[in-house]
Amino acid sequence: MKSLIILKIGGNVIDEPSTLENVLCNFADWQGDKILVHGGGKIASKLMTQLGILPQMVDGRRITNRDTLDVVTMVYAGLINKNIVATLQRRSCNAIGLTGADANLIPAKKRPIKDIDYGFVGDVKPECISTYCLTELLKTGLTPVMAPITHDGAGMLLNTNADTIASSIAVALAKTFHVQLVFCFEKNGVLRDTNDEQSVIDFLDESLFRSYRNEGIITAGMIPKLEGAFTALRNGVAEVRICSPAGLKSGNWGGTCIKTRKND
Amino acid sequence: MKSLIILKIGGNVIDEPSTLENVLCNFADWQGDKILVHGGGKIASKLMTQLGILPQMVDGRRITNRDTLDVVTMVYAGLINKNIVATLQRRSCNAIGLTGADANLIPAKKRPIKDIDYGFVGDVKPECISTYCLTELLKTGLTPVMAPITHDGAGMLLNTNADTIASSIAVALAKTFHVQLVFCFEKNGVLRDTNDEQSVIDFLDESLFRSYRNEGIITAGMIPKLEGAFTALRNGVAEVRICSPAGLKSGNWGGTCIKTRKND
Repeated sequence: MKSLIILKIGGNVIDEPSTLENVLCNFADWQGDKILVHGGGKIASKLMTQLGILPQMVDGRRITNRDTLDVVTMVYAGLINKNIVATLQRRSCNAIGLTGADANLIPAKKRPIKDIDYGFVGDVKPECISTYCLTELLKTGLTPVMAPITHDGAGMLLNTNADTIASSIAVALAKTFHVQLVFCFEKNGVLRDTNDEQSVIDFLDESLFRSYRNEGIITAGMIPKLEGAFTALRNGVAEVRICSPAGLKSGNWGGTCIKTRKND
Repeated sequence: MKSLIILKIGGNVIDEPSTLENVLCNFADWQGDKILVHGGGKIASKLMTQLGILPQMVDGRRITNRDTLDVVTMVYAGLINKNIVATLQRRSCNAIGLTGADANLIPAKKRPIKDIDYGFVGDVKPECISTYCLTELLKTGLTPVMAPITHDGAGMLLNTNADTIASSIAVALAKTFHVQLVFCFEKNGVLRDTNDEQSVIDFLDESLFRSYRNEGIITAGMIPKLEGAFTALRNGVAEVRICSPAGLKSGNWGGTCIKTRKND
């Protein structure tokens, strides 16, 4: 089985040009099949402010109205995606920048309105991903660079969480590839103490995760990220890693290695 | 030899939602290999005004400074390109939206500074186009949708004329396909009298073009468009057509048919 690395880079990495540059240089140098998934960053919020579009938040979560959808489409699929592609091309990585609408790669469903109407937000299922087209692109020697935009198949673009896109692609391709899913963000890994960058938890399996969570060591935003990681592992992904840009540079990763069981 | 249609749609078609919708529906219904190339339209200028970016013009031609490049990247490669893709996907056309940076499809050279510095504008040569990747995408059953952005291979995106992109792709693929290049714009075709939509010149070869030009019947903006068309024909493109959205709808094209010689 061929190996495939899926690297997801978050907003904080994108917002710092020198960090982004370093991450992309390291990514470009990796041999073999690989896919980059990027999040949004602050550029979209900045552009919304400039255009007088008021952020709509409910319970701390952003609502994607029509104007916001246009802005994220411009910033994620246009500005960020194409500049990443140009940088990777400079490093001889034959990148191809795509959204989930392109080649119908990621058909999504607009999130149903229950208590909250999130607007033009798309939910994704791994089984809907067009693995045929993704595999053909990889066979052609291309490196897909995915922006966090999907579509509903009825002509509407949808804003979609980049972590979800990365996990869903990882699961969808786990049948044909030995998939390593790497989340690169501003911290050194999953930390025992969020204020201490040296307190990285080297290894997590599901039982360790539950203990740490029950003890209150792993909290807040890290819980859905890790639950997503274990879902990916249960669905065939070989390994998930959460690390900092420095981990990519060193090549020995560091950060937190997440597997179903130790020594798997 | 397989047939390939390359359709270029200009800014005026993009600016009218109902016209664009009709053009895309017709395009989606065409069988066989096809490529769509789109221009910009007024959305980029509108966004620049909203952001307080002053248009820089020299001799009536736009200068692409860094801020302008960011805006056209957002609007052309993001907003316009991805909405076209989503609309085509709705009509079961498996579109894939790309710039010339993606898959290194269209490497360009930043226009040299002579009398005027045009800024981040890219000039394209057909022999530099990655016909391998374009052909692989077509073989996979995909329909490339090209935004008028290229790159210099050194990490810089470049603003590039959409007519030039369409002609260059047509020439590059003329060795492996029987290529028909169609320019769809707001007029019914090349007109004898620009104020009379019924005065369409049905057919043009190079000697007819020279006569009409010498007589002052074909003038202004149409001259570089037609010179580009004859360059394409001399380099293997089978036929060039200039027509209106109505021509696409009827299926019998109408407009102006341009060939090297009559009855070729």
